Amino acid sequence: MQHYFLSQTIKVGDQIQLPDDVSHHLSRVLRAEIGDQIEVVSSEQRVFQAEVSQLVGQKVTVTVIKQLPVNVELPIKATIVSGLSKGNKPELIVQKATELGVSQVIFLPMKWSVVKWDQKSAKKIKRLNEVALSAAEQSHRNVVPTVSYLKSLEALVAMDFNTKLVAYEESAKAGEKAELVKQVEATAADHSVVAVFGPEGGVAPEEIQLLNQNGFINVGLGPRIMRTETAPLYFLTAVSVLTELQGS
Amino acid sequence: MQHYFLSQTIKVGDQIQLPDDVSHHLSRVLRAEIGDQIEVVSSEQRVFQAEVSQLVGQKVTVTVIKQLPVNVELPIKATIVSGLSKGNKPELIVQKATELGVSQVIFLPMKWSVVKWDQKSAKKIKRLNEVALSAAEQSHRNVVPTVSYLKSLEALVAMDFNTKLVAYEESAKAGEKAELVKQVEATAADHSVVAVFGPEGGVAPEEIQLLNQNGFINVGLGPRIMRTETAPLYFLTAVSVLTELQGS
Repeated sequence: MQHYFLSQTIKVGDQIQLPDDVSHHLSRVLRAEIGDQIEVVSSEQRVFQAEVSQLVGQKVTVTVIKQLPVNVELPIKATIVSGLSKGNKPELIVQKATELGVSQVIFLPMKWSVVKWDQKSAKKIKRLNEVALSAAEQSHRNVVPTVSYLKSLEALVAMDFNTKLVAYEESAKAGEKAELVKQVEATAADHSVVAVFGPEGGVAPEEIQLLNQNGFINVGLGPRIMRTETAPLYFLTAVSVLTELQGS
Repeated sequence: MQHYFLSQTIKVGDQIQLPDDVSHHLSRVLRAEIGDQIEVVSSEQRVFQAEVSQLVGQKVTVTVIKQLPVNVELPIKATIVSGLSKGNKPELIVQKATELGVSQVIFLPMKWSVVKWDQKSAKKIKRLNEVALSAAEQSHRNVVPTVSYLKSLEALVAMDFNTKLVAYEESAKAGEKAELVKQVEATAADHSVVAVFGPEGGVAPEEIQLLNQNGFINVGLGPRIMRTETAPLYFLTAVSVLTELQGS
């Protein structure tokens, strides 16, 4: 069933004229007909089943049938921070991280980033938020993750999170393999966890130092070297496995 | 350090003239010089440090310095089976699965696959094995995963694995969240686990029936709907978290 985010409150029985972009997608791309069912998510992140009740040109009106008892959000709020990386990697990170339950994705320049965004950042972030919306619709999220740009690691360490981690290849090489599980399991429900991932070149020693001084803990993500776009997906999956699946 | 797979046994002190493709990459792409260090992996999956000792035209000879005590393979052998999917998804699956430690990737047509490979399969599989080799070099694996094509699910169920799983969206929707952890933890070291993933349309009921009749267990991978190329990466990460990281 199609799944759309509406920026309004919703209650059963409401007749809602869908926003133009959603209407267009339903009526023109999917050729919806009267009686077709969709899911709509309210601004309070509640999911409702609705039925197409009126089609006038490209304008689609739905009637809200019932609330669905659906919550697919991770029990802890996960933020990933990614050093600027090349090509379509930021898009891949945002798309896959959204499927894996991320709350927030932050991109920032790091010492060993070979690309700069500078003036391009507003345009890139706009596009990446569209990728997040589309992926959140596809994976039937209750929330659309936010994607943003920070100018520096200094701006990041001023932000507030309950659990703060940095994926550090040198820790993994040195055999560190306990901290990720320990830190995620120690994070209470509804609390936040942030994890920093370097660009292609990795995280520089002075960046590790700044992060450590501000309470970020080095974690290893297993023994293999992962690309810059794969490591955040490993982290988010680990959060899911440790908080959403049941142990034996 | 560059990491290359050689199809021969290696011992410390050996002088090895590298194969043409590796020589070319080192001498022309990376402009290697005498004394540069690389890693070479023997046909027995042992990793050695070697030093460039001779450069004649594009021919590179290395001297093997020492064996490195490196094993980055998953403790259990993981095979993923993927219903044929569109576009560059098979490449993405192979590349990321290799980074995440997969042993074997099998592609096969499934009922709801919208693409067919048929005559193209040999060419596709050749290309995908190149992707696996390149990703195995980048992620410093001890083994290059194999990529192959099977004609049908019937051919798959005739194969032998210790633990057999199928990722089934309907199980996840019904709240199944215990089997993945249980089955992976019950798989002994060096034993094999296989997991089947449907194409974009999912796994058809009659395919689930065939798999279940042949000992495949339905597992949920958390509450969110994942794309066909994301689910195998979730599975492999879960295997890593459950077998390579230490619990608190």
